Amino acid sequence: MAGGASSKPLLTFEDFPVGKTFDLGVKDVVESEVLDFARAYDPQPFHLDRVAAEKSILGGLSASGWHTCAMLMRMIFDAYLKDTASLGSPGLEQVRWRRPVLVGDQLTGTSRVTEARISGSRPGMGILRVVHELKNQKGEVVIVWDGTQFVSTAASLAAGGAT
Amino acid sequence: MAGGASSKPLLTFEDFPVGKTFDLGVKDVVESEVLDFARAYDPQPFHLDRVAAEKSILGGLSASGWHTCAMLMRMIFDAYLKDTASLGSPGLEQVRWRRPVLVGDQLTGTSRVTEARISGSRPGMGILRVVHELKNQKGEVVIVWDGTQFVSTAASLAAGGAT
Repeated sequence: MAGGASSKPLLTFEDFPVGKTFDLGVKDVVESEVLDFARAYDPQPFHLDRVAAEKSILGGLSASGWHTCAMLMRMIFDAYLKDTASLGSPGLEQVRWRRPVLVGDQLTGTSRVTEARISGSRPGMGILRVVHELKNQKGEVVIVWDGTQFVSTAASLAAGGAT
Repeated sequence: MAGGASSKPLLTFEDFPVGKTFDLGVKDVVESEVLDFARAYDPQPFHLDRVAAEKSILGGLSASGWHTCAMLMRMIFDAYLKDTASLGSPGLEQVRWRRPVLVGDQLTGTSRVTEARISGSRPGMGILRVVHELKNQKGEVVIVWDGTQFVSTAASLAAGGAT
C-alpha cells in the first residue's frame, strides 16, 4: 500500500504541513516520448506532425496535455511520492495547461501543500490538497494542477495501516 | 489545426449544443498497457505488482489514474475529436477517479456537452464544457472528467480559421 522499496522511513501525513514545498527536479521533453504518447493516446496532428504543429496555435511539436500530466506525475513520484505512505488520490480540482510544452523544453517545478486535514471517517488517513506547477526553461508556467492526495498518518502506518 | 484527415466535413461549434451526447465505444483494459504506462509515469506498487495490488485498497492490479485519463482521451479522439475542428483545451475543472480501473475491465462511456458559448475575445472560437464519464462492465462509474474544449465555429473554419 505504501510508496517505495527503500529502507528509509516513509513520509506520512505529519511530513506534509501546509506550506511544505517539494522540488520536482528536471525533466527534458524528448521528441520520441512525445510521439509515443501521442500515437497511443492523443493523436491530434499538433502532437504528431511537426509541420502541422508549426502551423497550429501551439507553435511547434508539443506534448499532449495528458502527457504533460504524466510527466509531472513521474516527477512527483521520483521527488517524494515513492517515499510516502500514499493511499492514492480521489481526483483533481483543476488542471490548467497554461502554455504549450514543446519538444526540447526543460521542465522544473514544485509541489506545495495548501491544505492538510485528517479524514473525518478514517482517522488514520490524512487528506492533502497539493498544487503542482511546472515551468519551462524560460521560467514560464506551463501547467498548474491542483489535486487531492491521501496519506497515512504515522500512527496508522505504525499500526500497519489498519485504521 | 483541425482534427482528422478524413474527407467528411469537420464538426464545428454548431455541432455541440448543450445536451449533445457522444458514445465513446469500448476499451478493454490490457495488462501490458497498464504496466507500460505505470513503468513510464506512475510506478506505484498497486499499478505494477499484482501481489502488492491485491493487498492494497484498490483490490487488484489497477491502471494509474493518469492512464485512465489517457485511455479516455483516446476514446474521445476516436469517437469524435478526430473529426472536429478542435482548437485544443485550456484545462479541466475536475477529475474524479470513482473506482479502481482493473486489468480485465471493459470500459464504455459518453461525452456530454453541458455548456456552449462563443468566446468573448475570439468570435470564431466556441468554448464548450464537456463531461466525460466511463463505466466498467458492471455499470459502475470509474471516472468523471469535467473539462473545457475549444472548437472553431463553422464560419471561422470556412474562412480558414483566421478569426
